[in-house]
Amino acid sequence: MSRVDGRSNDQLRVIKFTRNWLNNAEGSVLVEFGNTRVLCVASFTPGVPRWLVGKGEGWVTSEYAMLPRATHTRSDRESVKGKLGGRTQEISRLVGRSLRGVVDMKALGENTIVLDCDVLQADGGTRTAAITGAYVALVDAISWAKEKGHISDSAKPLTSSVAAVSVGIVNGEPILDLCYEEDVNAQTDMNIVCTGDGNFIEVQGTAEGEPFDRTLLNQLLDLGAAGCKQLTKLQADALAK
Amino acid sequence: MSRVDGRSNDQLRVIKFTRNWLNNAEGSVLVEFGNTRVLCVASFTPGVPRWLVGKGEGWVTSEYAMLPRATHTRSDRESVKGKLGGRTQEISRLVGRSLRGVVDMKALGENTIVLDCDVLQADGGTRTAAITGAYVALVDAISWAKEKGHISDSAKPLTSSVAAVSVGIVNGEPILDLCYEEDVNAQTDMNIVCTGDGNFIEVQGTAEGEPFDRTLLNQLLDLGAAGCKQLTKLQADALAK
Amino acid sequence: MSRVDGRSNDQLRVIKFTRNWLNNAEGSVLVEFGNTRVLCVASFTPGVPRWLVGKGEGWVTSEYAMLPRATHTRSDRESVKGKLGGRTQEISRLVGRSLRGVVDMKALGENTIVLDCDVLQADGGTRTAAITGAYVALVDAISWAKEKGHISDSAKPLTSSVAAVSVGIVNGEPILDLCYEEDVNAQTDMNIVCTGDGNFIEVQGTAEGEPFDRTLLNQLLDLGAAGCKQLTKLQADALAK
Amino acid sequence: MSRVDGRSNDQLRVIKFTRNWLNNAEGSVLVEFGNTRVLCVASFTPGVPRWLVGKGEGWVTSEYAMLPRATHTRSDRESVKGKLGGRTQEISRLVGRSLRGVVDMKALGENTIVLDCDVLQADGGTRTAAITGAYVALVDAISWAKEKGHISDSAKPLTSSVAAVSVGIVNGEPILDLCYEEDVNAQTDMNIVCTGDGNFIEVQGTAEGEPFDRTLLNQLLDLGAAGCKQLTKLQADALAK
Amino acid sequence: MSRVDGRSNDQLRVIKFTRNWLNNAEGSVLVEFGNTRVLCVASFTPGVPRWLVGKGEGWVTSEYAMLPRATHTRSDRESVKGKLGGRTQEISRLVGRSLRGVVDMKALGENTIVLDCDVLQADGGTRTAAITGAYVALVDAISWAKEKGHISDSAKPLTSSVAAVSVGIVNGEPILDLCYEEDVNAQTDMNIVCTGDGNFIEVQGTAEGEPFDRTLLNQLLDLGAAGCKQLTKLQADALAK
Amino acid sequence: MSRVDGRSNDQLRVIKFTRNWLNNAEGSVLVEFGNTRVLCVASFTPGVPRWLVGKGEGWVTSEYAMLPRATHTRSDRESVKGKLGGRTQEISRLVGRSLRGVVDMKALGENTIVLDCDVLQADGGTRTAAITGAYVALVDAISWAKEKGHISDSAKPLTSSVAAVSVGIVNGEPILDLCYEEDVNAQTDMNIVCTGDGNFIEVQGTAEGEPFDRTLLNQLLDLGAAGCKQLTKLQADALAK
Repeated sequence: MSRVDGRSNDQLRVIKFTRNWLNNAEGSVLVEFGNTRVLCVASFTPGVPRWLVGKGEGWVTSEYAMLPRATHTRSDRESVKGKLGGRTQEISRLVGRSLRGVVDMKALGENTIVLDCDVLQADGGTRTAAITGAYVALVDAISWAKEKGHISDSAKPLTSSVAAVSVGIVNGEPILDLCYEEDVNAQTDMNIVCTGDGNFIEVQGTAEGEPFDRTLLNQLLDLGAAGCKQLTKLQADALAK
Repeated sequence: MSRVDGRSNDQLRVIKFTRNWLNNAEGSVLVEFGNTRVLCVASFTPGVPRWLVGKGEGWVTSEYAMLPRATHTRSDRESVKGKLGGRTQEISRLVGRSLRGVVDMKALGENTIVLDCDVLQADGGTRTAAITGAYVALVDAISWAKEKGHISDSAKPLTSSVAAVSVGIVNGEPILDLCYEEDVNAQTDMNIVCTGDGNFIEVQGTAEGEPFDRTLLNQLLDLGAAGCKQLTKLQADALAK
Repeated sequence: MSRVDGRSNDQLRVIKFTRNWLNNAEGSVLVEFGNTRVLCVASFTPGVPRWLVGKGEGWVTSEYAMLPRATHTRSDRESVKGKLGGRTQEISRLVGRSLRGVVDMKALGENTIVLDCDVLQADGGTRTAAITGAYVALVDAISWAKEKGHISDSAKPLTSSVAAVSVGIVNGEPILDLCYEEDVNAQTDMNIVCTGDGNFIEVQGTAEGEPFDRTLLNQLLDLGAAGCKQLTKLQADALAK
Repeated sequence: MSRVDGRSNDQLRVIKFTRNWLNNAEGSVLVEFGNTRVLCVASFTPGVPRWLVGKGEGWVTSEYAMLPRATHTRSDRESVKGKLGGRTQEISRLVGRSLRGVVDMKALGENTIVLDCDVLQADGGTRTAAITGAYVALVDAISWAKEKGHISDSAKPLTSSVAAVSVGIVNGEPILDLCYEEDVNAQTDMNIVCTGDGNFIEVQGTAEGEPFDRTLLNQLLDLGAAGCKQLTKLQADALAK
Repeated sequence: MSRVDGRSNDQLRVIKFTRNWLNNAEGSVLVEFGNTRVLCVASFTPGVPRWLVGKGEGWVTSEYAMLPRATHTRSDRESVKGKLGGRTQEISRLVGRSLRGVVDMKALGENTIVLDCDVLQADGGTRTAAITGAYVALVDAISWAKEKGHISDSAKPLTSSVAAVSVGIVNGEPILDLCYEEDVNAQTDMNIVCTGDGNFIEVQGTAEGEPFDRTLLNQLLDLGAAGCKQLTKLQADALAK
Repeated sequence: MSRVDGRSNDQLRVIKFTRNWLNNAEGSVLVEFGNTRVLCVASFTPGVPRWLVGKGEGWVTSEYAMLPRATHTRSDRESVKGKLGGRTQEISRLVGRSLRGVVDMKALGENTIVLDCDVLQADGGTRTAAITGAYVALVDAISWAKEKGHISDSAKPLTSSVAAVSVGIVNGEPILDLCYEEDVNAQTDMNIVCTGDGNFIEVQGTAEGEPFDRTLLNQLLDLGAAGCKQLTKLQADALAK
């Protein structure tokens, strides 16, 4: 049984990284997972938040948000409502944790990098696209910082790369990189965040309908790890240009 | 190498459920996982939120919070700060999702159950204690509703039971049900939510330090599933009284 | 004519103080006035807010709150609504003022004590129970601070004890320590806060229905002062254990 | 020993009511207690809040606020800070309760009156001036509503008049209607709200320094009741014009 | 065709400045443009906000607000709603910009002046009355500061005076200083802010109905500039007293 | 003397409209004024806000915002701060007013169009780009609505087109369409909003430094009107494709 967009179960959507999408940011990438389009921007600032000053360590954090009409119907702005929704905060925290998972804070030195991930168009998998794109922006920001002398040339602030992908069970079958229509129909939804050398940084699986057993869980983990491997390759290609 | 409180790696803390801790609530349980103490209260109300009216389905949701001095040092109140932190919202969402995972909304009928989980004392594992205790409160609230005739006697709103436990890697070894001191030192931290028949509702694992490989992940899943099985038994015992 | 719970008009409910209800707080008391149950926690911190630094004086403040299902029907959380209600702020201010009324800030030195009073179950008189319990927690926190050397042994930060009780007119008769059912039916409701040596710190009387005359006011003041005297004795007993 | 402005201990400041201070409001009074100047405005609207609809009863509520430079030094605006302070809410509630104390809600019918009390200049006693002035505005708004036919001519929505005054102990002596300088130095501060026939609606006394004994409390109650009696007379005079 | 209040098209309403309306403020003016009544208060404080410290420059800012019943029907308080409306912020910014337009910040030295403009009664033109009155309060505050030695006698912090007026097209004719009833019916509404020597600080014109052509725009500019000239004279007269 | 980017004083930057930038929105345009890049999205919904129901009229409104790193240095998110800044609200109101200026609400019928203008990259003139782009998105949304039958084919909801441009005085010379570097150095800054037939909808001029005289004002108006005329042509070209 084929998928809504004709992909095979273990096939990613068309993935595209457009680096330097902004003129002024230290790193900026428009990442596309099919129709999902996320602007990932890395802002580098010398110095750290007050609670870190003098420890010789850097700080990496992230904020995720969606434009009001990224989705099929318009959502109210969180800035207008005056508060952040739980989903927004949860994903912001996930993106930050994922990126910090490959950063050596000592090597970064007392510098701060904020990763803004703004979803311009949403078609499923926005958080995994955000993580995958943010890594590319992070690399560019660190290169910039080395060039400007904020980080010494010999320092290695990155211990690995990081990529993320969603997997899920739709119609009883495990599939990779769900688009919105698939996501809505998934019994189980899982997000996998892996380093470039194939280890896990974060695994989050949720039964939306039926609880899932260990066999399915294993299949999802396999599928997700394989998807991250492909994304790691695509990130490297994009960065090689 | 032994654990800070002398437990074996696969041993739960002392688990205690005190049902009917409040006089007026439809279900209320003070659950204790060692020194972690969470008051789980189920409030049953006939009727559903506006967006569900007329669909013949019920609604279950949850709110998690901590008293300011549940922790070692006092935290500011979120009510005073005027906004909910990301952690609070994230856990509230997790608890709600976990409980909904075993509820048949059609069988519940157009009724709403809110599960308030307030941490009175925190010593690690508050979210898993909350889920585990909230299930017991939920059962009591449903019994109450059947008694009062809000739900028909033959209806089966619960498809299974649900329990949750934390697992983690400390000093390279997988251990079950981490207390605060262990949690702080864990390289990887994972929360497992299982149904009474051993399937997964939610799996959330995070590398706090080193990314983890598939072997460790599998060990953690085994350990967590076994822990949930024990908790399922303890819930049943508590409900049998 | 007898009261709903069979008490005589000048009789307190069963009063219970459970000290050290929490493991980590410097002072913590679960106080019960019948079914009203308030967790009073004193958090001691060396140092004072910025506006007091260098004056050689300490600071005592309080925050009062209710768990959502402390009452008969569930209330929305103030943290979720994003603002504190007037009642909450008013009672927090009252508790703080009442406790400060027996503290010698010079003798306390540049130290801060925050008294958190969280109502776990409400059956009338929550603010008076909060004051009465907070005093006991305050004593324990000060003992802790003396033991740890934050306050010198010879210092006397407490000038007296403080207790509070509600009085009211129900069916035309003055009664002491109203439970919820009585409170709802009271024509006049009054809260009396007294020191251990019988003086007044705060007197707040409100005509809920009929305005009250001076004769009734005098009766209420007599009744309240007598009630506080009994509570003072019970506090001393609890602290003697 | 004489007072800062030469008054005798039981003497009010110069009291002035300017009715119809605004063109459009149903009732509006600029009330002055010496230099304290409060604009009290009664807005009458047919209809009641949703929770009262169909009960045949009206609603009276109040909001109290201070202009930023009403005081000696400028305060930040609560609208800019984005939240109401505890003091503001406490006084708003007191003013509302005090006015409701003389309103027969059945006779008012399903109509709402909001009393806005804005302090233009503060020199002590702003809450008591607000209550005293709001009563006059309330009378005017009810007359307007009778004229317009919103309330029948024969209805008596007011059961009495209401006035309020502060009393306090300064240098050991009870004095009436404290100005700011006296208020700052008061050991005890009390606000008395009385009906026109001499009964109490609200009594709030606070020991700012030394706790006070019953004798002093009685003196303050006598002084306050006598002050309210004078204010009742002045209100009647203003309304007779 | 005559105006609702019988004025000629280029005639201002009765303008009145009452200086020193408050006892404690460094400058305070009750300004009246017909029935529009705005209390303009200048609060002078030595020192500047942190971002200006050490630059040898002062700071002037403004906050505009309306009392809830300044208008025909009562509006909700922004302090109660917990956020500032767009109109309030827009006008606050306009008033601040307008006043800063005539202040030499170097000559002011490291001092801050906050201009609070609170509309007590609104009958059109509140923002222009606010600017015009705030200038008078500003002059008084600067005189006060010179007297107290916060600004040297020879310093000239004011480069000119500033006044503002509204103009608009009603029934096809350009008219000056619109009252509320005219404002509601205006096709075009324009606010002109001029210095005493006839230059423009701010020009804001909005087509409420029909877009306007250049000829009408020129007429409005002429009319507004002439109106400001008259107001400049009236300000000077008020300050000469 | 030439401009920073070599343009002549009356020359626009390169203007670019990319229609249908999003898949799901009824109208969406990425508009570019040089490096300024604004995503303008028109969301069409049948029905109107409650206060308009039954009047046979539609509603058009707008929200403007900036991504955190649209600017040279990162700004904090308003959603995280929990409140909208004055600038954001002011521009949102301006954009909404400008678009409403060319909409016949009767012809639109009881339908709502929300125009979201999100600045992805800011290099001066973001508000004028927003208005100019939003018009194109509005046209597309109306075409969509006609196609879907929400608006009858014969209805003419648009009375004209609308475009906007900034003008300013830099180094004493009036120039058109300022980029950021010019904007920062402008003595006077003006935004002109014109209909396609050359009338004004909004004129906002502010002296940032020196007040400006009538001659300069006239030059700015000429320059702005001419700029809008060019933009009108470019909008028509874009819509013709």
